[in-house]
Amino acid sequence: MSERDFTKVSEEQVYDGRIITVVKGVFRYPDGEEAEREIVRHPGAVGMVAVDDTHVWLVRQPREAADDPDMLEIPAGKLDEEGEEPLDTGKRELAEEIGKKAERWEHLTTFFTSVGVMDEQVHLYLAEGLSDHQVEPPDHNERIEIVPWPLEKLDDAIAETRDSKTLVGLLMLQRRLQ
Amino acid sequence: MSERDFTKVSEEQVYDGRIITVVKGVFRYPDGEEAEREIVRHPGAVGMVAVDDTHVWLVRQPREAADDPDMLEIPAGKLDEEGEEPLDTGKRELAEEIGKKAERWEHLTTFFTSVGVMDEQVHLYLAEGLSDHQVEPPDHNERIEIVPWPLEKLDDAIAETRDSKTLVGLLMLQRRLQ
Repeated sequence: MSERDFTKVSEEQVYDGRIITVVKGVFRYPDGEEAEREIVRHPGAVGMVAVDDTHVWLVRQPREAADDPDMLEIPAGKLDEEGEEPLDTGKRELAEEIGKKAERWEHLTTFFTSVGVMDEQVHLYLAEGLSDHQVEPPDHNERIEIVPWPLEKLDDAIAETRDSKTLVGLLMLQRRLQ
Repeated sequence: MSERDFTKVSEEQVYDGRIITVVKGVFRYPDGEEAEREIVRHPGAVGMVAVDDTHVWLVRQPREAADDPDMLEIPAGKLDEEGEEPLDTGKRELAEEIGKKAERWEHLTTFFTSVGVMDEQVHLYLAEGLSDHQVEPPDHNERIEIVPWPLEKLDDAIAETRDSKTLVGLLMLQRRLQ
């Protein structure tokens, strides 16, 4: 057993919100030390790198937490449907956000957004073989602008976006295209 | 003015923690609609891609929020010193975490870790021209293992890590090395 193999001693919820909760956990290490950690719990999310021969399909949307009305992002959605698998959430959100479906899906990576304080994981997928698939978008998507971004200008999107999942997704896309 | 140009109407703190706070903000859009958003406030962080001719300098450390005793990450630190500039925090943390200083620093990108719910930004820097610079590490770093990672195996580190800043940093490094 490594000196880093902690076990959870206790956990207490200290805030119960609409999307997130906050807990205080106590963890014990093999040397006997105990550490109290404040952890934000989040249901997780999925992001889709939807690409055809000439474009990657991005969106712009207002992000109040970032004080930005025009954040450039890959399509994405929270894992907020009970029991829905990440890939199924991805398929649903791709249709709702940009009106597309994909023939081929491939898992790119899954990562923690803020590993020191939050348990949110983002599952990133590559979606290829796109075709139109219009569905009625839910209310929360109505301020989303669809932005087909030329692959030849991928560097510009990577330079502009300030969103973690979009940076990881577009950098992974660029690596595959080279 | 775009339909997405929101203004903040009010903000109320609903949780006050050790590192994070949670606020409920009300935002108004030009069409009159108001949206309530739960936002986690975090002081932000800095991450360092410290590289020499043969290695990128990584660390392994326990991350309770991710339930992982051995998360593979770039050296990093919270912006928790009053008034300290991100680059200065980066220099301090590079010495504290891996015992190095760098001749050349370059800003790579700054991104929001979880743009829907949190205001945390990570400032990423490339650090080159490394030399030994031992300082007394603070207590909170004592479980950190320093991992010099061969550049020729960069793909393996990108495949293993599950940390957003490390993915972005290593993918950007790989792009520069090609």
